[in-house]
Amino acid sequence: MKLFDRVAIVGLGLIGGSMALEIKKRKLASKIIGVSRHQKTINIAKKRHAIDSGGTSLGLIREADLIILATPVIKLIQSLPQVFKLAKKGAVIIDVASTKAEVLLAANRLANKNKYFLGCHPLAGSEKRGIANAGLGLFKGSLCVLTPGRVANKNAMNKISRLWHKLGAKTIMLDPKKHDEILSFTSHLPHIMAFSLINTVPSSYLKFAASGLKDTTRIASSDPGLWEDIFLTNNKELVRSLNKFNSSIIRFKKIIEKKDRNSLRKFLRSAKRKRDSLE
Amino acid sequence: MKLFDRVAIVGLGLIGGSMALEIKKRKLASKIIGVSRHQKTINIAKKRHAIDSGGTSLGLIREADLIILATPVIKLIQSLPQVFKLAKKGAVIIDVASTKAEVLLAANRLANKNKYFLGCHPLAGSEKRGIANAGLGLFKGSLCVLTPGRVANKNAMNKISRLWHKLGAKTIMLDPKKHDEILSFTSHLPHIMAFSLINTVPSSYLKFAASGLKDTTRIASSDPGLWEDIFLTNNKELVRSLNKFNSSIIRFKKIIEKKDRNSLRKFLRSAKRKRDSLE
Repeated sequence: MKLFDRVAIVGLGLIGGSMALEIKKRKLASKIIGVSRHQKTINIAKKRHAIDSGGTSLGLIREADLIILATPVIKLIQSLPQVFKLAKKGAVIIDVASTKAEVLLAANRLANKNKYFLGCHPLAGSEKRGIANAGLGLFKGSLCVLTPGRVANKNAMNKISRLWHKLGAKTIMLDPKKHDEILSFTSHLPHIMAFSLINTVPSSYLKFAASGLKDTTRIASSDPGLWEDIFLTNNKELVRSLNKFNSSIIRFKKIIEKKDRNSLRKFLRSAKRKRDSLE
Repeated sequence: MKLFDRVAIVGLGLIGGSMALEIKKRKLASKIIGVSRHQKTINIAKKRHAIDSGGTSLGLIREADLIILATPVIKLIQSLPQVFKLAKKGAVIIDVASTKAEVLLAANRLANKNKYFLGCHPLAGSEKRGIANAGLGLFKGSLCVLTPGRVANKNAMNKISRLWHKLGAKTIMLDPKKHDEILSFTSHLPHIMAFSLINTVPSSYLKFAASGLKDTTRIASSDPGLWEDIFLTNNKELVRSLNKFNSSIIRFKKIIEKKDRNSLRKFLRSAKRKRDSLE
């Protein structure tokens, strides 16, 4: 069932590419237009039947009823004035970036009833990147956070919710700042841990790595460019969650320095209980 | 091909239970005797055909040519005087604990040419525990660190190496202290990270967890009792590696506070390069 006539997707990476494939497969749009910095990406997307047409010019979004912005977040924010300028009257614009406060701050200055903006963050992804790793099923069973802006448009918001539901995701509405605070703990902090942990292990010791180190650092293989933008656009919340994490590490250090078995047991048991509840 | 006549395994958890199943399947011993604190574990091990006989009394190790100690490390160290007392002349005693310096310190006081001791640490495992999760293939493709003690016995050492090779593991020889220093980075630090990270995330935020948090904290579901012992017997090395990790976190925090894009890029790229080299 068609939800939109023409959909333009700017940025055909893992998320943008997977959305294109899903929208195509489910016939949720009559036409999908892809925009990428690289013509090569457009060619691959065409070959994979993810898009009907596309190119490297942002001007291609002019004809779209729904514009999906799926580039790294700083570039995305920088492109917003141009996107709103090019978008046709009545267009719905969404983004799928991992931080939301700065995006909404910029979008709120540009959005109006005729050019509606809704922030979206599908909590799905992988350490793998690019159109080559895009595929069906990425959003199945996932949660997508919706962060509305200053301008309301109930009809457009409902259509976007339905789009995510069709892709297999549940949706939840959050204030953009609250989103960034929560995600600083549930996603950004784990990534910092992974990056820092692998940087801490001496290279000559890596041959002794077993599944523990591999699991905890898998996401350190993520795209540095993407994460650079995420960390820079959520740095204030991240400093706060890093401080909380640091207190926990310092507490742990004191416990083992003192060989305080009772406190150690409590620390480990509460962690296990919490982790066991996760899946 | 039989390597030993009678093998006793003390502690039928994930590692002890899996070793029993492997030795049985490959007919590396004529008889496998299991010792566990719980008769229930012995019953399960018998039902799974992991052991031929067994019970809750340590005295059962008297008849064994090879004694494998696979209990949590502090209990293991405490049991050593009794194990050496009970072991028959000519017996080979090995352990499979995750820390080695304190084990070897204790074993060196007891070992002699007639009761040989070799420390072993198979770098294989899981956040899952117990005989119920034991299985074939756990050691396949893994590395087993051998930490010899004061008393040498080339023949016994060769037989133990061959045992690990039969189980699918490569072996490498290390000084016990060096082992503990390396493992403090490659295994113990990742576990501390996982335990601390999940403890830091507010419970009400857990429903926003995606694969990043799940991957990085999976090992926080590990057996707290086992890890308590590991952290307490390697606390000095761990304080050092924690300090190194902490410097990395503090450096990262400064970088994002200053929004220093160049340093951030270097930090993330070096992490990705290192992690990509891992598998």
